[in-house]
Amino acid sequence: MTITTVGLDADDTLWHNETIFRLTHDRFVDLLADHADRDTLEARLAETEARNLRLYGYGVKGFTLSMIETAMDLTGGEAPASVVREILAAGRDMLGHPVETLPGVDEALAALSGRYRLILVTKGDLLDQERKLAASGLGDLFAAVEIVSEKDRASYERVFTRHGTGPEQAVMAGNSMKSDVLPALAAGAWAVHIPYAITWAHELADAPLDHPRYGALATIEELPGWLSRQA
Amino acid sequence: MTITTVGLDADDTLWHNETIFRLTHDRFVDLLADHADRDTLEARLAETEARNLRLYGYGVKGFTLSMIETAMDLTGGEAPASVVREILAAGRDMLGHPVETLPGVDEALAALSGRYRLILVTKGDLLDQERKLAASGLGDLFAAVEIVSEKDRASYERVFTRHGTGPEQAVMAGNSMKSDVLPALAAGAWAVHIPYAITWAHELADAPLDHPRYGALATIEELPGWLSRQA
Repeated sequence: MTITTVGLDADDTLWHNETIFRLTHDRFVDLLADHADRDTLEARLAETEARNLRLYGYGVKGFTLSMIETAMDLTGGEAPASVVREILAAGRDMLGHPVETLPGVDEALAALSGRYRLILVTKGDLLDQERKLAASGLGDLFAAVEIVSEKDRASYERVFTRHGTGPEQAVMAGNSMKSDVLPALAAGAWAVHIPYAITWAHELADAPLDHPRYGALATIEELPGWLSRQA
Repeated sequence: MTITTVGLDADDTLWHNETIFRLTHDRFVDLLADHADRDTLEARLAETEARNLRLYGYGVKGFTLSMIETAMDLTGGEAPASVVREILAAGRDMLGHPVETLPGVDEALAALSGRYRLILVTKGDLLDQERKLAASGLGDLFAAVEIVSEKDRASYERVFTRHGTGPEQAVMAGNSMKSDVLPALAAGAWAVHIPYAITWAHELADAPLDHPRYGALATIEELPGWLSRQA
């Protein structure tokens, strides 16, 4: 078979992201340490995030709003204003955080960009994802950038039809089984899982181990070789 | 000349938006009435929004965060938790607000959709704009939807090249002189201004009255006739 198009996830595939969310979680837990223990705080924040996802979607701004809401809930409204200010500052820090590409990304993308049409497919805040791509220095390697509100079967069908030669000749590579691998396979594309050190609970799913169009790699450095072997 | 493609702004061109922001402003002013008068509150909120635009971009989530930050600043951190909760609720209400199309929109779009390629070009929160388009019932009339982080010359060049036959054969119609008209003209496209009852201060700019590719209409109902006259 012929693969013409490679879709790449951004956060935790090309650059660190979940690590930065975890640091902010730590900061949130410290701020509210007088009101609840870590497990309670994490559980309540996860509940708030899940409840708000339908309205806020993905990204730092919605996460910041959910942290503020959780702080209000957990303190019975007795959170000092300094806590709210600190959460706002934590959110702004995330939006200004330096972008650090993961090991092997630059080399892998350079190797791929001459042979395939590369498409960045990511969710999150529009402006923030554009900022990170610009800061990564990788922007010129991509033929197209699609920032979507949800990574589902329909969005992969649309993206690979619009920018490539259809899902059948496309592969999606990313760290999320739930958002990168399973819906891309459902759309008729190939999919490669490249794990990141930590995964947001919301993105966990079982691997489709027996699927004929699925591949599991240890790092992005293995992607050019894997693609060559499928040809 | 031949126009093949019509770009349409969404907020305050196809449906009410600024009205909903103004209602939320009123709610914000009421909440903080004990701390400052309306003019002070409005001025401080506008300052906070302008300062945060670079990080947050456009949309309801960033606006909600800016309201919270302004409340903290204006109360010297003495804002009761109920104020923060109310602001969070106001933001959620905006994100769930029913979509009300403006008079004449359905008829105008129906008339245009058979003769031109219609493209929705809007900024704001990704998920929120998709929700509003779905709720409007207008989604099927558009050949493409582009939610962009900034409406500038480069974004119009990209959108009209990707989805149409280039800026020279495209017209952008919307209520914002600054975001819809001027950058579309700069990109080489035609542009039509269709005013809304109120305009966010950030979107104000002078009309390019003498520009040969500029048109000023009173309502969207005049757009099909204006396009016919340019042919």
